[in-house]
Amino acid sequence: MTQFIGYRCSLCQTEYLPGQVTYTCPQDGGNLDVVLDYDSLRQKFQPEDLTSRAENSLWRYLPLLPVNDPGGEGTPLRVAGGTPVYILDRLGQRHGLKHLWLKDESRNPTASFKDRASALVVARVRDIGQIGGPPVVVTASTGNAGAALAGMAAAIGMQAVIFAPKTAPPAKVAQLQVFGARVILVDGTYDDAFDLSIKAADEFGWYCRNTGYNPFTVEGKKTAAFEIWEWWQGQNLGQHLPVSPLTVFVSVGDGNIISGLHKGFKDLLALGWLEEMPRIIGVQAEGSAAIANAFHAGTETITPVAAQTLADSISVDLPRDGVRAVRAARETGGTYITVSDKEILEAIAALGSVGVFAEPAGAAAYSGLVKGVAMGVVQAEDPVLVLNTGSGLKDVKAAMQATGQAPVIEPLMEALKKIL
Amino acid sequence: MTQFIGYRCSLCQTEYLPGQVTYTCPQDGGNLDVVLDYDSLRQKFQPEDLTSRAENSLWRYLPLLPVNDPGGEGTPLRVAGGTPVYILDRLGQRHGLKHLWLKDESRNPTASFKDRASALVVARVRDIGQIGGPPVVVTASTGNAGAALAGMAAAIGMQAVIFAPKTAPPAKVAQLQVFGARVILVDGTYDDAFDLSIKAADEFGWYCRNTGYNPFTVEGKKTAAFEIWEWWQGQNLGQHLPVSPLTVFVSVGDGNIISGLHKGFKDLLALGWLEEMPRIIGVQAEGSAAIANAFHAGTETITPVAAQTLADSISVDLPRDGVRAVRAARETGGTYITVSDKEILEAIAALGSVGVFAEPAGAAAYSGLVKGVAMGVVQAEDPVLVLNTGSGLKDVKAAMQATGQAPVIEPLMEALKKIL
Repeated sequence: MTQFIGYRCSLCQTEYLPGQVTYTCPQDGGNLDVVLDYDSLRQKFQPEDLTSRAENSLWRYLPLLPVNDPGGEGTPLRVAGGTPVYILDRLGQRHGLKHLWLKDESRNPTASFKDRASALVVARVRDIGQIGGPPVVVTASTGNAGAALAGMAAAIGMQAVIFAPKTAPPAKVAQLQVFGARVILVDGTYDDAFDLSIKAADEFGWYCRNTGYNPFTVEGKKTAAFEIWEWWQGQNLGQHLPVSPLTVFVSVGDGNIISGLHKGFKDLLALGWLEEMPRIIGVQAEGSAAIANAFHAGTETITPVAAQTLADSISVDLPRDGVRAVRAARETGGTYITVSDKEILEAIAALGSVGVFAEPAGAAAYSGLVKGVAMGVVQAEDPVLVLNTGSGLKDVKAAMQATGQAPVIEPLMEALKKIL
Repeated sequence: MTQFIGYRCSLCQTEYLPGQVTYTCPQDGGNLDVVLDYDSLRQKFQPEDLTSRAENSLWRYLPLLPVNDPGGEGTPLRVAGGTPVYILDRLGQRHGLKHLWLKDESRNPTASFKDRASALVVARVRDIGQIGGPPVVVTASTGNAGAALAGMAAAIGMQAVIFAPKTAPPAKVAQLQVFGARVILVDGTYDDAFDLSIKAADEFGWYCRNTGYNPFTVEGKKTAAFEIWEWWQGQNLGQHLPVSPLTVFVSVGDGNIISGLHKGFKDLLALGWLEEMPRIIGVQAEGSAAIANAFHAGTETITPVAAQTLADSISVDLPRDGVRAVRAARETGGTYITVSDKEILEAIAALGSVGVFAEPAGAAAYSGLVKGVAMGVVQAEDPVLVLNTGSGLKDVKAAMQATGQAPVIEPLMEALKKIL
């Protein structure tokens, strides 16, 4: 916490002290980067001081986070992160890749990557407290982010309020309500819910988690980069892996996850702990490609689209963290790739065939890889890590589209033999 | 593997060599217990030899399992088990309990306890191979067991065949198909699917995982007892916990999970590694209470019921592992408690309020605890562990029943203020 020394606007570079601002830059509304005191961190810590910690969760990296220890020992808050990396030998062979892995974020407590951000936001609330009552945390969401915030808040008995458009799938609303969040359905769009949540936060003194608005979500999401870094160091020990840098494929909606990964790697680079910046490749749905469009147009100006894709978690008209998302690829030698819904469905089946059940947004990263191989973005020797950002159990309808119909037979051996 | 010396029928006590039988007792159809060479294990291992192993999964306990290492490093097969234990302070206080924990099996790779059994079955297939082609594993299932088998088999590229009644929820069928299993829907009941899967296994040389039929499912499920034992040892180190034994609450359908827990504790007792047998308390739905009925009638004769409960994973007419399930409670000083669907729904909400999203069958164990407190089965000082056996994401319909309707408002502050 003592290492958290302020914010810097990602647009105008203006710097602020920790207590000076709360969400975005007062001058231009730009997303704020949290600034850490890298000099002090370098003096105080060696990589081994973190990697030797017993806790196998994102809290392992607490010294590099801008929050104090939030407590909550023995609760789901405490086991967010620490997700497994699987080796995808068979899928790698299918596409001529020698080194292919998948980091499975669906194994977070509420089954998506968003737990990382929500864990940090909850810790931030513990740090700043609230005047005039117990702290309340609020967000606008239609899915994973809301469930993650509701779940992490429930873990430590904090009240959460979730604004969602009334068109949100009843299943996702039910998940929010099971976690005891106060759910308010808005007769309008996600953007209406977003705006109302910010007004309500201002009015009632609630702390607002909104993605691409709250500077701490990226600080949570960067812990995935720390885990990738530590895992990759382990892979290199005593092995003869290729010298080319790691390439990371990640799906992109509002741009906050890819920005978080980039921030994590930049932190490590600033500390002198990372030898080589990984290449970060963003994958967007063709029907929701505002950031990819900007990247390929060579600009940081994000032009909204009328988003249309079955991958609901990355279906975004106006990405709220687009500028940093463009930079994450540009500054790491990466690129953006767009994929069709059909390709996403194929990716769900491909990942399923090796035992990973991904939601469409999660599978999108893998379909981007398949396309990237065909485009020559990655070569046979390149080590590649794909991120699955959420569980297929959250969107079974898409899974049903990804598979065919199972045959129905009479319960008789003759009937069985006929279809085999 | 060298410690696996045979089977013993749970009914007639007849012993068999490992190669002599495959599924149930040829004499009376009784469930077979795997027999380990405890003398040899005692000589070869100390508890520290296992608890110091780096692998945080069920494979940590490989020396006590009747299979060889199945390989599959870096796949979902390798991360089954190793589930977290949460402390339920607030819920404990609500019910006057000083020491209450929950072991969250929903955090297994396919989101249920059944991964433990399926992981062992897949390893068994690796051991015995198959004549005339690549090995195929088969099961009848309507839900978690099938998904677990399909997922664990997919992890290592093994073919799985799943028979399900055609009335199985499409969502669960989709999950099976995403994992690449060959799914065959049977125009009949689960019992019809069960019988056909056994016939097909015999005819085609497939290895049959069916619950309460294959002796290796219990061997996988016992690893949860090993984890509880290791965790409990850690809790006792340097702390002043009560001297009364740990009480474990677990939901019961066909009786295989509770039998697995019992077997695990019995293994540890036989090795001299367990000081005191935990009390095991089985919880059944009132509408599916064949085993509880037998327990309270003081018999091992299981009389089938016409099962009716929303907790589909424990909705069973004729439990296939009833005798051992009765003994698990009887031989450990435990008991059976039955709960209504309403109580199960209340338990879903209670667990949700602390960040755990349980399916009805998983929440049933907690509702049994609540009832057990009222009945005086557990006292304030008793240390209690509740098992959540599956994820609420697998049955969102029940979650929706457990929560009320969220309000819908215009996206305006005045509208918001009216409802707050």
